Amino acid sequence: MDAALTSRSKDYSQWYLDLISTAELADYSPVKGCMVLRPNGYAIWDQMRLELDRRFRETGHVNAYFPMFIPMSFLSKEADHVEGFAKECAVVTHHRLRAAPGGGVEPDPESKLEEPLIVRPTSETIIWHMYGKWIQSWRDLPILINQWANVVRWEMKTRPFLRTTEFLWQEGHTAHATSQEAVEEAERMLWVYHDFAREVLAMPTLPGVKSASERFAGAVETYTIEALMQNGWALQAGTSHFLGQNFAKAFEVSFQAPSGEREFVWATSWGVSTRLVGAVIMTHSDDAGLVLPPILAPTQVVIVPIWKTDAEKELVVGFARAVQAQLKSSFRVALDDRDGLKPGAKYYEWERRGVPLRLEVGPRDVASNAVFAASRLGGKKEGIPVDGLVDAVRSRMEAFHAELLRRAEERLAASIKSVDDYASFKVELEKGGLFLLPWSDNAANEAKIKEETRATIRCYPLKNQGEQAGKTCFYSGEPATHMALFARAY
Amino acid sequence: MDAALTSRSKDYSQWYLDLISTAELADYSPVKGCMVLRPNGYAIWDQMRLELDRRFRETGHVNAYFPMFIPMSFLSKEADHVEGFAKECAVVTHHRLRAAPGGGVEPDPESKLEEPLIVRPTSETIIWHMYGKWIQSWRDLPILINQWANVVRWEMKTRPFLRTTEFLWQEGHTAHATSQEAVEEAERMLWVYHDFAREVLAMPTLPGVKSASERFAGAVETYTIEALMQNGWALQAGTSHFLGQNFAKAFEVSFQAPSGEREFVWATSWGVSTRLVGAVIMTHSDDAGLVLPPILAPTQVVIVPIWKTDAEKELVVGFARAVQAQLKSSFRVALDDRDGLKPGAKYYEWERRGVPLRLEVGPRDVASNAVFAASRLGGKKEGIPVDGLVDAVRSRMEAFHAELLRRAEERLAASIKSVDDYASFKVELEKGGLFLLPWSDNAANEAKIKEETRATIRCYPLKNQGEQAGKTCFYSGEPATHMALFARAY
Repeated sequence: MDAALTSRSKDYSQWYLDLISTAELADYSPVKGCMVLRPNGYAIWDQMRLELDRRFRETGHVNAYFPMFIPMSFLSKEADHVEGFAKECAVVTHHRLRAAPGGGVEPDPESKLEEPLIVRPTSETIIWHMYGKWIQSWRDLPILINQWANVVRWEMKTRPFLRTTEFLWQEGHTAHATSQEAVEEAERMLWVYHDFAREVLAMPTLPGVKSASERFAGAVETYTIEALMQNGWALQAGTSHFLGQNFAKAFEVSFQAPSGEREFVWATSWGVSTRLVGAVIMTHSDDAGLVLPPILAPTQVVIVPIWKTDAEKELVVGFARAVQAQLKSSFRVALDDRDGLKPGAKYYEWERRGVPLRLEVGPRDVASNAVFAASRLGGKKEGIPVDGLVDAVRSRMEAFHAELLRRAEERLAASIKSVDDYASFKVELEKGGLFLLPWSDNAANEAKIKEETRATIRCYPLKNQGEQAGKTCFYSGEPATHMALFARAY
Repeated sequence: MDAALTSRSKDYSQWYLDLISTAELADYSPVKGCMVLRPNGYAIWDQMRLELDRRFRETGHVNAYFPMFIPMSFLSKEADHVEGFAKECAVVTHHRLRAAPGGGVEPDPESKLEEPLIVRPTSETIIWHMYGKWIQSWRDLPILINQWANVVRWEMKTRPFLRTTEFLWQEGHTAHATSQEAVEEAERMLWVYHDFAREVLAMPTLPGVKSASERFAGAVETYTIEALMQNGWALQAGTSHFLGQNFAKAFEVSFQAPSGEREFVWATSWGVSTRLVGAVIMTHSDDAGLVLPPILAPTQVVIVPIWKTDAEKELVVGFARAVQAQLKSSFRVALDDRDGLKPGAKYYEWERRGVPLRLEVGPRDVASNAVFAASRLGGKKEGIPVDGLVDAVRSRMEAFHAELLRRAEERLAASIKSVDDYASFKVELEKGGLFLLPWSDNAANEAKIKEETRATIRCYPLKNQGEQAGKTCFYSGEPATHMALFARAY
C-alpha cells in the first residue's frame, strides 16, 4: 500500500477512497454495499462509542438490546414509516439450507417462514411493541433506553462510512408522559450530539430543524446537526426526532395518568452512526492522509528511533522504550523500531495513518535527555525534555484538538453565504458552501430546487430563526417563514 | 411483578424463567426464539464485555467489524462447516418490500437476490475471505482480530440467554505462520476465558478438550471451559478452536514464508456469548432471586433510608444522599427514597435484583454517623461507620466475590463423581453431577450413551489426562485412551 493519495483538488471523491484504503480504515466486502471496518477504522468508532456512552449515561439513559429481526407486518403499522423504509429492507424468508442438486446449498423450501422477517432498518416498531408490554401507568415513565446495534438499509450507491447497506449506530428510544417532556428530550440529545461533535470530533455543527420533506419517516419534528466537509458539501451528522404519539398509537401504547385517564405515550428517537467516521475524515484530513483529533486516534503518539550503527541502535531504541514506558499509561503509544525502513518512510506512513504526534529520538536526543516532536499538523519541530514529558504531550494534544476545531470553525464561518435570488444561487452553488436564505416553506418548491440543483434544505438553523422577519423568499418572493440552510450534501 | 419465584427444588427450569422475568433481565420478543435484553440484563453483559475487551487487548488483539451478511456459497467452501451450520441459517432472499394487494406489504419479487445471503451464524467464512486479501507474506502475520457482534442460529427450542436464535457474542479470529503458534493462541485464549470466569463471574470452570463429535464444525481441536450449574448439569461456557489450515485451504489463503515457499496459513477462533449471563444466574442465584458478583452487578450498593415522620424523613434522606455522594465515584449506587413502600418491600425488591450490598439508614444511624449493612448472601447485619466507608464497602465487595467463588468451587468439587460401570452411571446420573471416567475414544459408543442417557462428553479435562493409564473404559472395557467428563448439559 505505498500508492500516493490522489490530491483533494484533483478529485475529492477519489482522495477520500484512497485515504481509507491507504490508512487501512475499511475494505470492500464480497457483499455489495457492505464494508469491513478494519482495526484502524473500528478503533475510531470505538472511541466515539465510549464518549457517547458516557454522555448518554450522564443524561440518565441505560442500554438495552432488541432483536434485529422484525415481523414484516410491524413496518406497515405506522403509515409514514413503511413509506420511508419499505424500499430498502433486507427480507429473511427461510431458516434453513439444504444440499442443492448441482452441489453447494440452497434455501430449503420447507423452511419458508409463515411471515417474512425484515432486518431492522431502525427499531421504532419492535421497541414500541415491547414498550406496550412494559408501560401501564405514569409510574413506568419515562423510559430512557439506548441501543448499540447494526442496521441494514439496502443502498444502491454506497460510499465507505457515509452510506453503506449495513452500518453500526446507536439509537435512543424514549417514552414520556407529556409532549413537552418528549420535546425537551429530543432537544437535549441534539445538544449532546452538538457538544460531542465539538469536544470529540473537533467538528463544529449547525443545529437546526428539518423541513417536512426531510423529516424522519414517522416523526413530527426532526432535529439535526449539519456539518461542513472540506469540499463545501454539507453532511448530516446526527438526528433527534420528536415522534409525537405516532408510534404509541400505531402500537397502542397508553398509560394511566395520575388523573386516572388513559393517554397515549409521547416518544423520541435519536441516532448517530459510523458515518461520523467519514465526517471526521472529510473534516480534518489532508493530501498526506488521515488527520484525527487525538481523542479518536487509535495511536496518539509514535516514537521513531533514528540510528546509523548497531551501537547507536541499541542506545536509541533503549531510550525510546523508556520514553514509551513513561507515556503509555496516559496515551496510546507506538514504537516503530522496524529495521530496513528509513526514518522518512516511517514518518510518511504514520502521517498517512493520522497519528497526531511523532517523537523522533536520535543519539543526540539521548545525550540531551530529550525527544524531537513533530505535529501531524506541521509547523516547526521542537525539542521536549523527557522530564515532564507526559504533561508536555498532554498540552500538545489539547492544542492539537483546539487547532483542528479552530480551522474547522473558520472554514464553516467562511462557507456560509447569502444570495439575492435563485439565479445567483445556482451560479454560486457550483463553488460549494452553505446558503443561509430567507425561505417560504413549500414542499413543491423544495422538490423543484432539489431536482434542478441537487441542493436540499439541510435545516432551519435554530440560531437564525426570526431573522426572516420582513424578508421575502429568495425563490418564490413570498413572505419568508424561515431562514433555511441550502447545500449539496452527502 | 410481585409474584414470588418458584423455588429451585420445586422446578429448576421454572425458577430460572421466573427469576429472569422478576429481575427484568430479559423478555420474549414477537420473533420466535429472539429475546430482548432489558437494561438490567444488558448491563451484566456490558460489564463482561468491558472486562473481556481489556483482557483481549492485553494479549495483543484488536477489534474490527465484518459484515453480518455472508454469500450463501461461502458456507459450502469448508465441508464440515456447512454440515454444522446449514440447518440453522436465516436466509435473506429479497431487498425490498412492496404494497401487497390486500393491504400491508410483501417482498417485492423484482428485488430477489441473485445469490441469497445468510446471516452469520459465525464469521470464519467471510473473515477468511478477507484475510485472503490482506495476507501476502509472513510479515503480515500474525493477525489477531476480535469482533463484537450479533449472530443468528435458528433454534427450535430456546431458553433465555442459554439458547436463542439471535445472540450477542465476541468471536476472535487469528491467522498464524505456524501450527505451533496457532495452537498456543487457542490455548492462551482458553486460559483467558478460564481466568475471566473466576475473576469476573466468580465461576470455576474445568478446562479441557472436546471429543471429535463435540468439536466445532471445521476445527481440528476444540478447547472448552465447562461449568457446573446448581442443578448438577454442565454448561459449556466458552470455546477456543485450533482450525488448522482448513479455512486457509477453503479460501486459498497462503503466505510467502521467509524461505520463499508459499504455505497455507494456520488459524484459530474463539468465542463467548450472552449465554454467560445465564451461566452466572444459574451458578449463584437463590430462591430469593438474582445473586451477582459485584463486578457484574448493575447496582452494587443500594441505600434504603428508614423513617416514620416527615422530620425523620428529611433527616435520613439527607444523610443517605451524603452517603451516596461519598460512594458514587467508586461504586454503582442507588438510593431508594420512594414514598409509599415499606422498607421490607424495598429490601425484597433489591434482593430479587441481585444487589450485593444494602445499606440501611435510620434516625439512630444518623445519630451515630453509621450505616447498617446487609449482604445479599445473608449473615448478620453490621454497623459500619461512615468515616472510611469506601474502603469498608470495597473490602465487603471483595469478600462477597471470594465467598461466591468459594461456594461454587465447593459445589464443583463435590459434584465430580466416579462410577465403576455403565449400569451405575445410569443410576447416578439421575442425581446430577459430573462424571470423570476412564474412556476409550469411540464416536459410536458416545452417540449410544447420549441417546440412552442424554449425557455427553463435556470434555477431556486437561488436568486429568494421563490418569487413564492402566485403566479400562467404563463403557466398553477397552483400554482407556482419555479421562472423560460426562454430564447432562445445557
